[in-house]
Amino acid sequence: MSEIVRIGAGKRWTDIVVYGGVARWVEVAENTADDVRGQIGQVLRQLDETAAGLGVDRRSLLEVVIYLADLRDAPTLDELWDAWVVPGQAPIRACVGAALSGNLRIEVIAQAAVAGG
Amino acid sequence: MSEIVRIGAGKRWTDIVVYGGVARWVEVAENTADDVRGQIGQVLRQLDETAAGLGVDRRSLLEVVIYLADLRDAPTLDELWDAWVVPGQAPIRACVGAALSGNLRIEVIAQAAVAGG
Amino acid sequence: MSEIVRIGAGKRWTDIVVYGGVARWVEVAENTADDVRGQIGQVLRQLDETAAGLGVDRRSLLEVVIYLADLRDAPTLDELWDAWVVPGQAPIRACVGAALSGNLRIEVIAQAAVAGG
Repeated sequence: MSEIVRIGAGKRWTDIVVYGGVARWVEVAENTADDVRGQIGQVLRQLDETAAGLGVDRRSLLEVVIYLADLRDAPTLDELWDAWVVPGQAPIRACVGAALSGNLRIEVIAQAAVAGG
Repeated sequence: MSEIVRIGAGKRWTDIVVYGGVARWVEVAENTADDVRGQIGQVLRQLDETAAGLGVDRRSLLEVVIYLADLRDAPTLDELWDAWVVPGQAPIRACVGAALSGNLRIEVIAQAAVAGG
Repeated sequence: MSEIVRIGAGKRWTDIVVYGGVARWVEVAENTADDVRGQIGQVLRQLDETAAGLGVDRRSLLEVVIYLADLRDAPTLDELWDAWVVPGQAPIRACVGAALSGNLRIEVIAQAAVAGG
């Protein structure tokens, strides 16, 4: 049995859980005063930072599930995503519209391949 | 290749699928006549029961994705969740609003680390 | 550390990612001019095709998360699903209503047990 490794283990949730060679985390913009374009940009940068902290990069993403507060923002997501993702080394991606907390415009569940855990 | 272990294998779905050291299941309140507070309480108790049946407990949860029929119920969720989760040993958690079947107020997809499978 | 195997690696996303004995993919109807019944039928057939391409079949599905553009289509989903799924060898299944892109009536995130990856 693998060990559960928790990074950023808080009271309500853990920021990143690593287990069985897979890291899982939820990414939302840290500054939710930003508009949707700003929040998407933040989330993509934060995905990079989280991956870097795990010793990998965006090419190690296995799966990204994206919730948009307003699905009409999908073209903005795609524009920024397409400039960010590494063609040929992208994760699977789902994107649906759902109600999000507070001022969040985007919430992402990410999984990445990592060593250990 | 790991073996797929199914617990509660029904006609439409399986209650719990264990594979590669990960148990996956969907939890909804058994008594949907309850209000949202009651349904959240049921789901948390059922998560404990399911975990116990797997030989683990809530500290083995890796990931919990929560759908609320009305995201305005999030404060009630957080109140009950915070009293339930083990600080420092929590899973990652996403929570969004989505349309749920029948009288469901909450639907949860859970994954936990287990031996075997 | 397992290797990430990508099948159908495009610019925006990869069709199927295999890692650690698990294949993950997103399935939507290829012909979105179809009504909801047609789209659900397509998705179920496409799940079979994807599974076959992975050397497995629908009995290897671990988890299926279903987003319906209109949850009132759930009875149609259940009718077609029940005729398709193998009783006793079904995956776990969640089904919620969410906003979907374009003319999509159903979007599915699937995971299956496979050898390798």
